[in-house]
This record gives sequence, C-alpha cells and structure tokens, in this order.
Amino acid sequence: MKLRTAVVGATGIAGQQFLTALWEHPFLEITCLAASARSAQKSYREAITQPNGQVAWYMSTPLPEKFASMTVLDSTALPLAELDLVFSAVESDAARELETSYAAHLPVISTASAYRYEDDVPIIIPAINGDHAGLVAAQRKNRNWKGFVLPIPNCTTTGLVIALAPLARTFGVDRVIMTSMQAVSGAGRSPGVIGLDIVDNIIPYIPKEEGKVERETQKILGALAGAGIQAAPFPVSCTCTRVPVLESHFEAVTVALSRSASVDEVKAAMREFGRDIGPRTHPSAPKNWIVVEEDPFRPQPRRDRDNDRGMATTVGRVREDRVLGPHGVKFCLVSHNTKMGAAMGAVLVAEDMRVRGLI
Amino acid sequence: MKLRTAVVGATGIAGQQFLTALWEHPFLEITCLAASARSAQKSYREAITQPNGQVAWYMSTPLPEKFASMTVLDSTALPLAELDLVFSAVESDAARELETSYAAHLPVISTASAYRYEDDVPIIIPAINGDHAGLVAAQRKNRNWKGFVLPIPNCTTTGLVIALAPLARTFGVDRVIMTSMQAVSGAGRSPGVIGLDIVDNIIPYIPKEEGKVERETQKILGALAGAGIQAAPFPVSCTCTRVPVLESHFEAVTVALSRSASVDEVKAAMREFGRDIGPRTHPSAPKNWIVVEEDPFRPQPRRDRDNDRGMATTVGRVREDRVLGPHGVKFCLVSHNTKMGAAMGAVLVAEDMRVRGLI
Amino acid sequence: MKLRTAVVGATGIAGQQFLTALWEHPFLEITCLAASARSAQKSYREAITQPNGQVAWYMSTPLPEKFASMTVLDSTALPLAELDLVFSAVESDAARELETSYAAHLPVISTASAYRYEDDVPIIIPAINGDHAGLVAAQRKNRNWKGFVLPIPNCTTTGLVIALAPLARTFGVDRVIMTSMQAVSGAGRSPGVIGLDIVDNIIPYIPKEEGKVERETQKILGALAGAGIQAAPFPVSCTCTRVPVLESHFEAVTVALSRSASVDEVKAAMREFGRDIGPRTHPSAPKNWIVVEEDPFRPQPRRDRDNDRGMATTVGRVREDRVLGPHGVKFCLVSHNTKMGAAMGAVLVAEDMRVRGLI
Amino acid sequence: MKLRTAVVGATGIAGQQFLTALWEHPFLEITCLAASARSAQKSYREAITQPNGQVAWYMSTPLPEKFASMTVLDSTALPLAELDLVFSAVESDAARELETSYAAHLPVISTASAYRYEDDVPIIIPAINGDHAGLVAAQRKNRNWKGFVLPIPNCTTTGLVIALAPLARTFGVDRVIMTSMQAVSGAGRSPGVIGLDIVDNIIPYIPKEEGKVERETQKILGALAGAGIQAAPFPVSCTCTRVPVLESHFEAVTVALSRSASVDEVKAAMREFGRDIGPRTHPSAPKNWIVVEEDPFRPQPRRDRDNDRGMATTVGRVREDRVLGPHGVKFCLVSHNTKMGAAMGAVLVAEDMRVRGLI
Repeated sequence: MKLRTAVVGATGIAGQQFLTALWEHPFLEITCLAASARSAQKSYREAITQPNGQVAWYMSTPLPEKFASMTVLDSTALPLAELDLVFSAVESDAARELETSYAAHLPVISTASAYRYEDDVPIIIPAINGDHAGLVAAQRKNRNWKGFVLPIPNCTTTGLVIALAPLARTFGVDRVIMTSMQAVSGAGRSPGVIGLDIVDNIIPYIPKEEGKVERETQKILGALAGAGIQAAPFPVSCTCTRVPVLESHFEAVTVALSRSASVDEVKAAMREFGRDIGPRTHPSAPKNWIVVEEDPFRPQPRRDRDNDRGMATTVGRVREDRVLGPHGVKFCLVSHNTKMGAAMGAVLVAEDMRVRGLI
Repeated sequence: MKLRTAVVGATGIAGQQFLTALWEHPFLEITCLAASARSAQKSYREAITQPNGQVAWYMSTPLPEKFASMTVLDSTALPLAELDLVFSAVESDAARELETSYAAHLPVISTASAYRYEDDVPIIIPAINGDHAGLVAAQRKNRNWKGFVLPIPNCTTTGLVIALAPLARTFGVDRVIMTSMQAVSGAGRSPGVIGLDIVDNIIPYIPKEEGKVERETQKILGALAGAGIQAAPFPVSCTCTRVPVLESHFEAVTVALSRSASVDEVKAAMREFGRDIGPRTHPSAPKNWIVVEEDPFRPQPRRDRDNDRGMATTVGRVREDRVLGPHGVKFCLVSHNTKMGAAMGAVLVAEDMRVRGLI
Repeated sequence: MKLRTAVVGATGIAGQQFLTALWEHPFLEITCLAASARSAQKSYREAITQPNGQVAWYMSTPLPEKFASMTVLDSTALPLAELDLVFSAVESDAARELETSYAAHLPVISTASAYRYEDDVPIIIPAINGDHAGLVAAQRKNRNWKGFVLPIPNCTTTGLVIALAPLARTFGVDRVIMTSMQAVSGAGRSPGVIGLDIVDNIIPYIPKEEGKVERETQKILGALAGAGIQAAPFPVSCTCTRVPVLESHFEAVTVALSRSASVDEVKAAMREFGRDIGPRTHPSAPKNWIVVEEDPFRPQPRRDRDNDRGMATTVGRVREDRVLGPHGVKFCLVSHNTKMGAAMGAVLVAEDMRVRGLI
Repeated sequence: MKLRTAVVGATGIAGQQFLTALWEHPFLEITCLAASARSAQKSYREAITQPNGQVAWYMSTPLPEKFASMTVLDSTALPLAELDLVFSAVESDAARELETSYAAHLPVISTASAYRYEDDVPIIIPAINGDHAGLVAAQRKNRNWKGFVLPIPNCTTTGLVIALAPLARTFGVDRVIMTSMQAVSGAGRSPGVIGLDIVDNIIPYIPKEEGKVERETQKILGALAGAGIQAAPFPVSCTCTRVPVLESHFEAVTVALSRSASVDEVKAAMREFGRDIGPRTHPSAPKNWIVVEEDPFRPQPRRDRDNDRGMATTVGRVREDRVLGPHGVKFCLVSHNTKMGAAMGAVLVAEDMRVRGLI
C-alpha cells in the first residue's frame, strides 16, 4: 500500500516537478492534484492548456497520461481524510494559510518559505540534520496540530549547506563568503526572468535571496536545543546573481576553517559525506552526496547538474585560501536547483520522515 | 603634427580594437600596420579576408577605408626610424622578443603580459599610479633602451583595481576576495571559448588568470620605491569564471577596510576618484572613472559596459560586510574588457605619457 | 520653432524608444509625455521606478534629465490644443480608442496595429509608398477628422517589404516565401519571451504574426486607387519564429520574379533603392536603405543590425533560385526591429509627412 | 555472441557519441577504439585528457570505466581479422582513405561524407530506403571489396528526408523549400562555432551544407535502378543557418505536393510512417519515427529534441500552403543532429543491415 499523496500547486512549474519526481515512486502515490480555484474541476491537461493552444507542461519527459486525466481539486478543499501526506508547491503568499490548514491534519512537506523561519520548524536535509525532525513534537504541541510542516530550504542554500556540512563537522567553520550564479529556472515563470534581461547579461540582485541563504545555512547547520534550534555561530556573507543558465546554481565559496586542513583532507571529508543516507534506505538520495571533481574546468552547470539524477552536489577547484582566515579553503559547486533544490529534495525529506516513522 | 604610430598584431581582434580606438584620435595617427609574416605585403583588407570569403573584421563599426587599403608590414621589419610609438597587440609568445626589439628604439605600449612582472616595468592606470612612470628611467638604464615598455594590466585586473584604488587611498585595504564572471571576448578568437562550451553554462576556471589578477592588483596599488615597486601588502583572493556574456567582466568584490567607513563614504570616495584625469587632458579618459549606481539591479554587463564609451567602471550594490573583516564593504562592478581593459586603456596610457613628456 | 510632440505610452519600452529617437531631433520636440492613469502626475523618473528600486529605463543611452523630470500626463487627457503631433506607442487594446480621440484633432503616427488594416489608412514607408499619403484626405473626409492616423507596419514586415520593393519595381514579383528568426525584443516586456523559454531554444510560432506580415506586405507594395489601396497581387507565405537574439529580425526570403534577372541586377536594384529619401531631406533616413553584403557569412543580426543607426536593411547571400519560379532569387536580410521597425521608423514617417506638408 | 565492433575517430565528439550509443547494445560490442597516431597506445582516458588537465569527455553521461581503460589503437592499424564491423567517425579528409582500407575487408558504417555521393553507395535511413542496400552487391563487385561502406546523411538532411518520405510516398512531392536553424553542435569542436560569433546572433551560411542537403534528399528519396540510384526528380532549395541552440536542427519546410491533400491527411501519413521499423526489430529505432504535435508552439529544439531518445523527428505547425504550388503544405520540424543525425543513426543502419543479413 503506497501512501496517498496530494500535490498542491500542481499546475505550476514547481508542482510539475513533483509529478515528475513521484512518477513511479516505490511508496508514494499521487492520489490528488490541487491548484487554485481557476483550475479546479478541470482535468489536469485542460488546466495547463492555455487559451492560445499551448500545453504548459514544462518537464523534459512527457506528461504521464495518468495525471493528464485526473481532475484538479481546489487547494482549499482537499479530501484530507483520504490523504497521508501533502506536498506543497504553492506560491508563497497563499502558502502560509493553506499549509496551516493541512498541517492541522497531516504531514506537509513544502518548497515554500512560509514556515522556514519559525522557531519550531526545522529545515531538514537528511544527510545533514535529520535529527532536527525532533522538533516535530514541539510543533505539534505548540500549534495543536496532528500533522506538521517541513519546508525545504531555498534552492541556493541547498548546495552551499551540503558542501559546508562535512567541513563544519570535520574541521569546524569560522566564516563563509559565497557568490552565486543562479539559473533562470530559480525565478519560475510568472514571469521569471525575461529573455531581454538575461541574454548576454547578468542580473546582480535577487531580492531577499542573500538574507535567506545566510539565515538558512546557519539554521540547518545549527544544533537541536530543546524546542528550538541553536543556529550555527559562523557568519555567512552572500552575493546572489542571476546568469544566462537554464538549470542549476553555481556557487564560488570561500571558507575559513576552525583548524588546519589540507586540500586532500577537505576533499576526503566531502567524498565521505552522506554515505549513511543512500538509495537503499532513501530511494531519491544520491549515491554520492558530494562528487568532488579533479578536472579544474569542472564543475560546470550544464555538464554536472544531472549527476546522480540531479541529486548530487558537484564540487571542484578545491584549493587553499589564506585571505578569509588562517585555515581556509575555496571551491566551486553546482547544485540542481529544480531537482535536489526543489521537488526531489522534498521527496527525499518525505523518505527520511518515513524512515523515522513520522509519516 | 600627429605622432606616427604603429599597431603590431593589427589583424587580430586586439589589433582591430586599436584601429577602432585610434580612428580620429587628436594626436595619434596610425602610420603603420604590422602583423605576422603570413599577412605581410597584403593590403589590410586582404590580410583579414579568409579563404571562404569571410571578412574577419569584428568591430561594430565598419572598417575604415584608410586602413583597408594600407599594406601590412611584417612585425619583424618595422620602419622604426619613421615611428614615434608602437602599440603592441601581439600574442604573448611572440610579444617578448618583438617588444624588446622595438623598445630599444622607441616607446611601446602593450596589451601583452610579456613584461608585466618585471621589476623595472610598471603597470600603469593613469588615475591610479601614473607616478609609476618614474620607472621608465630605470628601465632605460637597466636595459640600455632608448624607448621603454609599458604593459597594461590583464582586463580582469583593470576594473578591480580601479574600484579598490579610492578605498585603498581613503580608508586603507586589508584584504580582498573577488569572484569574476568574465565575458567570452576576453578569451579572444583562436579559438577562444566555443559555443558548445558556454551556451547555458559557466566555465569555472581560466588558466593563470587568478594569479595574474592577484599579483597585478598588488603591483598597481603598490608604491614606487627606488628602481622598483613595493607591492601593496594586502592579500587578494580571486575566483575567475567564464560566463555566457559577450563583452565586459562582472566582479563581486568583498573588501576588508583598514578603518571604519560607511556605505555613503565608500560611494563618495569612488565617485570622487579620478577627477584629475579627465577628457580635457586625456582624450580617452572617462568623465567619471567610477559610476556608482543606486538601483540595486545594477550594474549589468550588457546595460552598463558602454558607460562613457566603455571607459567607466560601474559599481553597484555597495553594502556593508562584517565577515571578511571588522570594517568591510562589498559591491559588484562591471568593466569593459575590450575597451578600458584593452586597446582604449592602452591609448589612455599613451595619453598620460604624452602629458608627462615621455612620448 | 520645433513641432510640439506628445509621446503616448511613454513609460513602456516602445515609448522609451521614441524618447531616444527624438532626443535632439532637428524639428520635433517632445513637449508632452503621457501614459496610463497609474503613471499620471508622477515625474517620468518616478513613473518608471519600480517598488523594488529598479529604474525601468531600458535604452542603452542614459535617460536624459530633461525627460526624467517631466510630469507624465494621463493618456486620456492630452492638451491637444498645445500639440502639433502625437506619436502613439500604446499597447494595442487601448490604441484604437485613444488614437481615434487624438486624430480628431491632429496627426497621429503609431506603432500600434489598431488602424493598420482600415481601407482609408495607408501603411507608409517613405522610400516605398510615400504617395499613399494621398489617402489622408479620404481619412479626414470619411471620419470627419482634422488630423489623421498613420500606423507603421509590423516590425517583421518592414525589412521584408524594403527588400522586395526594388524587386517589385524593377522585375516584378510573382510569389514570396519567407522564414523569419525574430528577436525577443519584438515581444516586448509584459512579459515578452521569458528566459526559460528561449535560451538554447526556438519558438516556432508568434500568434497572428504571419498573417500580419503577409497582408501588410501586399498593402504597402500595392497601388493607391481612388480612396483606397489596391493590394499587390502576389502571394506571400511566412513562417515566423522566435530565436535567442536580442535585437533585429533575420529573414530568409525566396522570391519568384516576373522576369529574368541576374544576381548582379538584383543587387544593383537593391543598392539603388531609396536614394531619393536620404538624410538631407529626412534626418532619420538611412544613407543606404539597403546595404548589400558580398561576404557570404553576412548579414548577421548582432553585427549588422546597427548599420546606419539601425535604419538600413542589410541583405546578403543573394543567389539564384529555380524552385519557387522560373526567374527567382533568394537572400537573407537583417532589419532592426526596435529602430527602423519601431520608433525611428515612425519618426521617419513624420519627417516624410513634413516634407509633404501634411504636418 | 555480440559482433566485434571498432569505433574509429573514437576520441572526437562524434566518436564519443558512438561510445555512448553502443554502451549496452544488445548485439554490438565495442572491442576496439581507434584514433590518430597521436592518441595511439594511450588509454582512452589519457588520450582525451588535455595538457591543462581537462578531461575532454563531452557526453552527458559519465565515461564508462570499460572504455576509459581500453588502449586506443592507431586508425591505420586496426586488427581487421578480429572485427565484424567498423563505425567510422573520422574527419572527412582522412575518411576516404581509411574507410577504403577497412571496406576491403569488412562492413563500414560512417558519419563522414567521403563516400556519400558515389554512384554505388546508397545513403540509407531504414524506414525510408532500406532497399537501397541492394547496392552493396554492386559496391563489392565494382571495388573488389569483401566489405562495404554505408555513410549516413548529413545531419540536416536526416530530419528533412524523414518528414518528406511519407509525403513523397502518399501524395507525391513536386518541390521543396527549406530554411534550417542549426545547432552549434553540428559544427563540432575544432573549433566549431565560437561563442563570440553565436551568442545573440545568427550565422546565415554553412559552407557546402545547402548543396549537400539538396543532393542527399534527392538520392535518399530516389529509386534503386540497376547498379545505381535514380534520384528523386523534385527540386529542393535550402537556406542553412546556424543559431544559438546547442543540440538539434530546426527546419521550416514548404512542400508542393503532386496532388491535393488535407492537413489531416498529411498528419496521418506522417504518423503512420515507419511503423514497420520499430524497436522490436531495430533496438535503436524510435517507436514513432515522426511525432506530430498539435500545440502550435511546438516543436521546440530544447523541448522536443530528446523525443524517443533523440531518434524521433518532431513535426508541428502543419498547415496549408498555396504559394509554392497548388497543393501544398508547410510545417516545422526538429531533429536531433547528434543522435538520429549521427552515431545513433549509424547504429540504426547497422541494425537494419543485421536484419538484412548483410552484417
């Protein structure tokens, strides 16, 4: 018996990624597709067909016929009693209210930021801080919920925090400076980044992004402390830019470590990271959480984003740095923003909660 | 009477930029075009016409007829007695030998790196370190030359060092971390960056670039000391990447200042910078060496690279930083790599040497 | 005394092109900027500044301070008595009503399609069919207007019809097949073409575009006949696509001529075309309406779009064709869609009406 | 027992596509990798590692370890007695001589054009003209070969001829006009199309391409006649351009049919085409040779190129045309130039020859 799963915000691009991620999942089955009132009661195919005849299905694999013919429900009228789990891919404004109404009854895993910064809400990446799931109990108690909300991080945080986690564990981290070059898919399609702004260009500013990444990184690498999380103490300084790349975020990272470490030790720590959370227990998990490249011309977004189905973080150009601190390292990484950084990352959280018995 | 000027390496893209920069210059006149033996004795138009009929003129303004019909000379056989000045746009391997042979007789200003790291050779950007021209006397004496060699910096250094100069002067600089996103034009055309590698992609590595930028920045911001230069003491750490942008380099810069400075003070120092080196005395100089943008979505390479004919450095997103040091600032900049960072920057050096009576 | 000119739709990108085109015009002066009610009573700078701080000025030259501080009026409340001319850059839905209200009082030249297909409304390109201005009298009579409306063609029509005009005149045209590759700027910014759809991609369909180009080409190359225009009798078949190019439309054209003509004769006819409508009488006119390239690798959008300030149509690869008809020719062209194909093309129409005494 | 197969030109991008296509093939096994003398005797991994450390493996799936450790042989010294089949991915200059030497002994299937235009050499696309394999006997006799050479067509021909084949069979074809927008991957990497030439641009000319496509289309759709092929009699007129797309060629096609056919009949003929050559008998064949899209915004290169593993030709925008002839149709197509149009297309030919007992 698979778990009965709803995808809310199913017609948008984030929702479509859930449909793609859950197609043929071993224990999760989409039994409900929901979207705004405008789409409700239409077949999914009708709901995504535009007046000009365009079928707004943006995935690289065809729309599965099973989903095409399902009737889309109104997000405010989910059959909660017939569901085991909700994936929320709702735009942020509506997310707060909808997710609250679902969480009163059942687990919600969300790509929206609505709940990310609440004290009793962890942001979980299984190989890093699965233990933060301990906060679920606090959440239920504080809010009188039967379910809970687990948001995944901003897609730019994901790659950074995965690369930092083995460094923080093994050597300690004192300070971080990161410059990102982010894909246009991260901005979605409403309207996202328009062609006139991004061809032959860079946009140096993504509103609120830098603050989110700095704060989320500290929270995810923090420690569970009572009914809350003690944020990691090291400061993170980000510059987030948009570049003419379709998918996956590239980040240039400089880290001051707490103690001396050679480049080889850093690479080894990265390569070892996450070995306990693999595809055997978590079907969506990458075999290698971090792929460390020796070719100095890697990682490249287009050539490395699909490593391990878009679930691996690819790191390259690991080298010493003595400018940010006495013991430092700098490197580049590529992380797939619409796979590990979105729906597939959320599915991985669900898989981890299943292992923990919370779903 | 204009100064009689040769452009060596005239058929390449860097040479073409000199032809464009010197077209209608008030006191420099191209009287000699030189290139490799393969082009010698052909008309310039013939020399750049390829077997398949393509006219390999890559500038956005048409090839002036005056140059088209000039006969290209062999670089090894310049009529030195009939020249006042040589601009060298020669590929690096040949540059050393050719520039040496010219400098024995007359001033050479070069975009090549051959002489950049010699003790008695300054890298001059007029608004920053025109006084380093004092080394010309040492050069002549050491090498028994009548002329001299003045190389301009790597095009990625140019924008960085211009933005840092007012900070170093006004507040002091302790440390710098920079991540660049560089245009494909910086790699030239032989073959440069191929489309298959850069569309929808980033290349995280440009061989030798980071070391050049770090070293040149310290040299340019250093102090003339006897017959050499005392490099600036602050460390610079760079990550240099290639992005799908045609022209101009974008750089995200974090600077630890030596003393406290507000964002407004930093902007004011930048805006004041270079006021004494303007178009009145230096025809190619920008009116504003640094344009500081308040719109947080600027600078953008495509929209800001042509500020002041490609000679201004455009800075934006100036904001506090507390991670690199106690008194810090971070910002983004755009600098035109094939204008200020190449031929037009070299012409500006010639103009400055003219003011100083060295040409 | 310059003519007092209003630009309606001044805050949009088409409006901004008018501001740029009319900056320093010898006999037209912008005395009124108008836009929708949302912008009215704000300074122009305020009107284009977005809540996130972005200054939505998209031209490559800075916003002239004179315009920045002008107060934007509501399009429905122009001071018609204080104006000599209106340029309309209004989105199509509102254009019909607004242009009607202006034309009752004074001349309107428009980039909108609202009036393009009316029997008594010519679509004028001065070098081709300036004589169609004879319809203005019919327009005034039919509609009881003091002014008139002159729309310019769709930007994809412009290059095609300019290239066809000398062929139609000199050799006769029997049939035309055209495939376009159009720039993203042609779709504007609301939202236009989004980056996710166009990077590394082609969109094979632009709604209504093909029919517009086919119909407008026949109308412009038609003959004034009484109070209407006898459309040119030859059929035109178009495929219009969108490609990852920022500015200028590229078109591959095959033409069956009515009689035999050599490639050289075709080129000569093109090169001669429009010599009577030059910058001496029409300040915005190109010196050469059609630039014919011999280099087989031209025209290229990026390298040829700015020929003669974006007002020339550049043709290349002129060669025989025997498939569409017994006497045929095929060629490629580049035409700047946001210069000759938009505001500057409209200004050129105004200049022609001035010569004809209609303004 | 699998057939022992050599890939010659294995280190280039075309060769890498063969390695990828043949990885896990049911009856073909690569037992020999060959390249130029420069690579010989190195391991494959060494052979593709450049002096700067870059591993020049350009496929989107990792280099299989099995190939990485194989020793590369010199192309002029294949162990012919230990091979059943050669795939040639050699650059054209060397192809003629090498393929001749192999074909004397065993079957050669080639992506090079060296033998394409010989009278006794067919260009086979299994669903269209598998019967042209009858020429193999003539080839052997004429040239005294034990093997034979079968070149696949130019990658731009492939999509066109597949789309035309059902039309030619069902309705007859009188004339064809085609404009292509071709991916940069079609130009390879030596140096192929450089970024500076193609970002924000179109190149209107690909030397020799148009003639190749015109001639190959007529040959493939021609009839086997004795010891040669009677080319199809209808003329084809092409304009071939290069656009900023990474993979897959887009073509806008206008066809004059020999008799009247509705759009629905044309679509039906396309959809039925190739049903007899499917994955059951030919493992690399697409399930649907032609996918006909109803969404007017399709086909798009990026979204449709991977249909059926890059082996399907996707057609859209099928509509009437009355300009090229009385019974006409126009449409757009996308065909994957480096899959169906290259190695995978060659493997499909091998599969067909296996069915025919020629391998």
